[in-house]
Parts: sequence; structure tokens; C-alpha cells
Amino acid sequence: MHATSTHISAAQTAVEDQLVDTVVASFDATPDARLKQVMQSLTRHLHAFIRDVRLTEAEWNTAIEFLTAAGHITDDKRQEFVLLSDVLGASMQTIAVNNQTYKGATEATVFGPFFVADAPEIPLGGDISGGAAGQPCWVEGTVTDTDGNPVPGARIEVWECDEDGFYDVQYPDERIAGRARLYSDANGEYRFWGLTPVPYPIPGDGPVGAMLAAVGRSPVRVSHLHFMVKAEGLRTLVTHIFVDGDPQIEVGDSVFGVKDSLITEFVQQPPGTPTPDGHDLGSKSWARARFDIVLAPAGV
Amino acid sequence: MHATSTHISAAQTAVEDQLVDTVVASFDATPDARLKQVMQSLTRHLHAFIRDVRLTEAEWNTAIEFLTAAGHITDDKRQEFVLLSDVLGASMQTIAVNNQTYKGATEATVFGPFFVADAPEIPLGGDISGGAAGQPCWVEGTVTDTDGNPVPGARIEVWECDEDGFYDVQYPDERIAGRARLYSDANGEYRFWGLTPVPYPIPGDGPVGAMLAAVGRSPVRVSHLHFMVKAEGLRTLVTHIFVDGDPQIEVGDSVFGVKDSLITEFVQQPPGTPTPDGHDLGSKSWARARFDIVLAPAGV
Repeated sequence: MHATSTHISAAQTAVEDQLVDTVVASFDATPDARLKQVMQSLTRHLHAFIRDVRLTEAEWNTAIEFLTAAGHITDDKRQEFVLLSDVLGASMQTIAVNNQTYKGATEATVFGPFFVADAPEIPLGGDISGGAAGQPCWVEGTVTDTDGNPVPGARIEVWECDEDGFYDVQYPDERIAGRARLYSDANGEYRFWGLTPVPYPIPGDGPVGAMLAAVGRSPVRVSHLHFMVKAEGLRTLVTHIFVDGDPQIEVGDSVFGVKDSLITEFVQQPPGTPTPDGHDLGSKSWARARFDIVLAPAGV
Repeated sequence: MHATSTHISAAQTAVEDQLVDTVVASFDATPDARLKQVMQSLTRHLHAFIRDVRLTEAEWNTAIEFLTAAGHITDDKRQEFVLLSDVLGASMQTIAVNNQTYKGATEATVFGPFFVADAPEIPLGGDISGGAAGQPCWVEGTVTDTDGNPVPGARIEVWECDEDGFYDVQYPDERIAGRARLYSDANGEYRFWGLTPVPYPIPGDGPVGAMLAAVGRSPVRVSHLHFMVKAEGLRTLVTHIFVDGDPQIEVGDSVFGVKDSLITEFVQQPPGTPTPDGHDLGSKSWARARFDIVLAPAGV
């Protein structure tokens, strides 16, 4: 039964309003003021949604079944609730709220589920691929603060999928590949060999994949390379660079991570083009990209 | 980091607004118009919540962990997402939206997780207890429509917990107890022996229980007896009657099911008081309650 077009009487509105007030008041005695604020706001928005769409009991059941299926497919390697948050843009909105625009600071984007702490450290100019297959890609840039001062010793963590769209944690073995940690030099500069990013779909065999199919949305993420950059006194930056020209940009990134400022030219280099560090790639083509990173002050 | 008191610049607001618009637009091609409406509304309200409280990344993580724990404790006997919906008043609001106030029609309340289809049929005046322990309670009333016409042959399903607060489905064995189905007679009248309802807590060993503890809320439900009443051409009624005088009414029902119109006097009868049907209860006290049921027309 769709009640959307039903007239809602003043008596009915009073009943619904009264219920919201009662539920909100039930959190009045919460000892932690912040928890109280969050639960009361959640209550108001949740009830507003139910009333806005006049949610049917069948739809409520579908929602319960959806959440149950998401819970059951989630384990220590698969996180369907993060995926759900991602495809609803909730992850990206949380990132936005916590990384407010500040002067020329590089914009943040989603963290994603594939970061691994303690990735191997490489020297500047080293290779993050760990043997993962893909086109070699030279990435370089400078880390500065928003006043333009170079930031030496910034801890830069980078991670990405292989040419088949798989991160190392998705491999059946325990290999570490396509991720590393390096530090900017005295001039704030960094450089490394990675792989030219490729597009890949988010996992589609769970309820989130079924939902995307039902609404006609692409599960594919725009090709990207992940960065997390930390430096003393500056705001930690979690972001990606996205490959300019990837047709998925027009279709839309499935988790809404793309910002115009993060779309980066990955310049294709024909086989035989000399590399910046003299490394001989034989008959392979390669690409190069420049990503200058600007960190906001901590606490903004 | 709590960003609640942070100034939000126009540039930041534009970034957040733009993200909401992008996510809403991602559902534009949804083939089913109702699904599109629901997903777009959900997106708007979810983002409004995140922005309203300036949700921190740590809080977002807590929410993901909460949902994961709810998913993992849920099985075919335990439904933590229904419980979550219940304690946030979302179940009751859905009931309210789908059972709009109509003239003198009896108000609906939550269905709860303990209904079982195909409960045994009893004759009028029969006993629903199935051997479950508790004080005997005579319940009687009339089923009418909103014009006052008796409704003969209404299918009345009733269910309730035993004196320890457990429903039969919570017993370790497969016994059926504290539930039955009966039909109103030619005058719309019904009557049965049940048990005087007692208060009980909703399951407290999962994340929902932990949340209630954190916010200082009682997990206890006001003593009640469940009804589901169906009759041709009339709106199906799912409701409870609540025991007048239960101190939990003042504390608050943990799932917000109580409506003033559903609070019913359960009149205590000293041992030896003659019963309405001449049934001899020996030295037991008993109680009696009257609940006249008014069904709205179908489709209102």
C-alpha cells in the first residue's frame, strides 16, 4: 500500500509529531551530551524520512532484510556496511564534514576498505608495485603547507589495485603489493614508481550490489591511486588522484569520491621514452603524473 | 574531533550541498518510481543527519561497528535490526503512517518479533495459555466497525508472554503456549482465558542493549497482550492492550508502543470469585479485562 498520496489529517499529524517528541525525549537523560545530541538528531531525521515517503510496512520489511543480509555477508575481509555508506555518499559526506575546505589545501576523499597499516617503506624513487601487474607509472610532487612552505619528512602512504582491479588484500595469498610508505625529502618532494590506475567495480555479489542494479547505477569506481599524508602540525590528508580522461568520470564514481581538483593527467609515454630516474623499462610503455599536495593546518 | 561548533563557510556549505545533489541525481534513472523516491529521500535525510551533527570519523566508525555487531547477532531466532527499529521508534512510526487515525477505530501498535502464524484455534471462551504459567485472565469484548455494527467471524489472533516474561518461541523446546486464534460470534463478541500480562525486558545482550544502557534508557516493555484482528472489508488491526497501573507506563515503554486509548483495566479478582464461564480456579486469584475493538474500513 502506498500512502504517499493519502491526505494526512491534523489528528494524524499530531499522532506522528507526538511520537517523534516521545522518542527524542527518551534520550534526555543520556549522560554523554554528544551521544544525546547524535541520538536525538538521528531520531528526528529517521522519523522525517519515514513520514516523508510514508514508508509502507512491506518496505520496512525489505529494509530489515537488506540490513540483515548486509550483516551476514560482512566478515573480517568484507564490509558491506562501509560499502553501503559509500554508495549512499555518507562516507564522502563524513569526509567532507571533517575536512572542511581551507585555502588551497588539497581536497580529501574516501578512505576505502583497502588500506593496510605498516605497508613496506620504500626509498624515494622506489617501486610500490611489489610485483603486481600493470603499466609502470612515475608519480612525483611536492608536499607544502597552505602558505607554500615545503613540508619535509611527510609520511606518504600510497596504495592501489593491479591491472585487473584487485588490491593485494583481495589476493588468495598473503602477498603485499601495490602499496608502500615513503617520506618527502628536505624540499618536500617525493617520487615513486607505481602502476597506472584502472577502473574496477566494487563488490557486487551482496545486497549493495543488488541495490545498485535495481536503481540502474554503475558499480565502477573511477581509476585512482590512494594517498594518506601525515605531517606534524598539519591536518592528515586522505585522498586519491583520479585519471583524467577515464570515461567513468562522466558515468559517475560509484562512491562519489571524485573532486575536480583531484583529476590528474597521467601522461602516456611510448616505449623507449627515457625515464626520470634512468630506469630501463625495455619495450614497455609507461605513464607519468604530478600531484602536488597542500596540507591544511591541524585543527581546521 | 567535534566539529559541531566550527564555523561552516559558504564554500564548505557549497561542497556539502553539491555532494547531496550528486548522490540524489545518481538515482535519477531508477526504473521503479517508488524506489527512486525512497532512495532519494533516504539520501537527503541521511546527509542532513551527518551535516546536522557534524558526524566525526570516529563516530562513523562506531556506527559501522554497531551495524556489524547487529548483523552478526541476528539469526533466524534473534532480530537485532527489528529491535533497533523498535527502540528508535521507527517501527511505531511506520505503524502510525500505515494506520492513520480514523474516527473511533482502535489504534494500532507494534507487531513485535513474537508472532507465529497458524497458532492453534480455540473455541470462544477457550484457553490460550497452553500450560504457560501465570495468573488466569478473562478477556472479552466486541468487534465492531466504525459505524457501530458488530463484526461476526472476525479472525482474532492473540499472543503474550508467560509470568517470567518469555514467549513460547523463547523456550528451548518447541512448545506452543500463550497464543491462539479465535473468531468473533454472530454478535461480534469474543472471549477467552489468557494470562495477566507482565512487564519484561527486550533482549539486552546485543548492541541495542548496550546502546540503551549508554543512554540510560529502560529496556522494559509495559505489560501487554497482543492482538491481530482481520475481517473482510475492514483494515487489519495489529495492536496490544496495556495493563493500567503498570509503573512502567510512567518510565516509558522501550519500543514506544503505548497509546492512552490502549491502556486497559485488568481488574483483580480475589480467589473464589465466580468466573464468567463457571470455570473453577480453586484457590487462585484471577483478573478480567474488557477490550472492545473497532475496525476501520479497508483502504483508509
